[in-house]
Amino acid sequence: MRVLGVDPGLSRCGVGVVDGPGHRPTAVRIGVIRTPPADPAGRRLAVLYAELVALLAAARPDAVALERVFFNSNVSTAMGVGQAAGVALLAAEQAGVPVVEYTPSQVKSAVVGDGAAEKQQVAFMVRTLLRLERAPQPADAADALALALCHLSAGPAAGEMSPRLRAAYEAAAPGAQVTVPQPRAGRTP
Amino acid sequence: MRVLGVDPGLSRCGVGVVDGPGHRPTAVRIGVIRTPPADPAGRRLAVLYAELVALLAAARPDAVALERVFFNSNVSTAMGVGQAAGVALLAAEQAGVPVVEYTPSQVKSAVVGDGAAEKQQVAFMVRTLLRLERAPQPADAADALALALCHLSAGPAAGEMSPRLRAAYEAAAPGAQVTVPQPRAGRTP
Repeated sequence: MRVLGVDPGLSRCGVGVVDGPGHRPTAVRIGVIRTPPADPAGRRLAVLYAELVALLAAARPDAVALERVFFNSNVSTAMGVGQAAGVALLAAEQAGVPVVEYTPSQVKSAVVGDGAAEKQQVAFMVRTLLRLERAPQPADAADALALALCHLSAGPAAGEMSPRLRAAYEAAAPGAQVTVPQPRAGRTP
Repeated sequence: MRVLGVDPGLSRCGVGVVDGPGHRPTAVRIGVIRTPPADPAGRRLAVLYAELVALLAAARPDAVALERVFFNSNVSTAMGVGQAAGVALLAAEQAGVPVVEYTPSQVKSAVVGDGAAEKQQVAFMVRTLLRLERAPQPADAADALALALCHLSAGPAAGEMSPRLRAAYEAAAPGAQVTVPQPRAGRTP
């Protein structure tokens, strides 16, 4: 199973592709889509959309794990995050790839085992679980990989995952919102 | 000058096309794009996107007037509104149509002359300015028309608008965010 994690944002949108099974995941792609802050929002969203469409076509993930956005955290960036999440949901739907949204605490629970873990702990566990030489930079890329790892411990591949990740997911799963689009012609989801 | 007003939302997205000049505007289209609440967000956004792309192609507006979303008002619907606004910005950018964002108080100032006007006052002024037999229903459609009227009192057609609307705009304009995408081939903006 292949999962594309997306940490939505207008200035930096983290993306990470991880292959399962959950107990031995492998990072396939790690990256960040950046758009110029000086550009108008529409142009930035068009760049982000084009990059995500290309990534979905190239990586052909079985699922997208998207960070569930909350708007009470930072009002100044929340608008861009919500707009970016909308464009990511649109691109995945058009590609016929199901989207699962996870809250930050669900991701932390699944990857670290603690829903209130610090960012550095998440980055350390991502590096360890994926056997990377160093922690992924910037943090948005690590967060995207963590989202993909969270889904690998939760989705159809859950039977393959480690007992530790499974236990963490069981605790985190009740609030997960699963959205499965209808398959498109020319694609076998 | 032709303006498409968009009041973004996932359950109901108000749309209204108004032809200028600002001192004698004419409503060309009034409508609401609805998406099924039971559907996953991605599918709803794909429906909204397709409808907006079709509307932009059919109406060929010179500008889109979009409500500037704030996330401190209603957290439960804010997520969908932000995602819908992102899809509207994307569709307009891809069509090569400039987008201008206005806050609700800017729209109320331009249309009613009072940034704290009630919804019914806005609907009444929209009906009066556009010489409609009755107030547009639902409120989202009236809000979309009000956005278009606000832009007609503000944009390149401003020289043609009535002194009253002009004065209201002068008061409301400082915070307006104007985003002008680059023109696309095959289109003369």
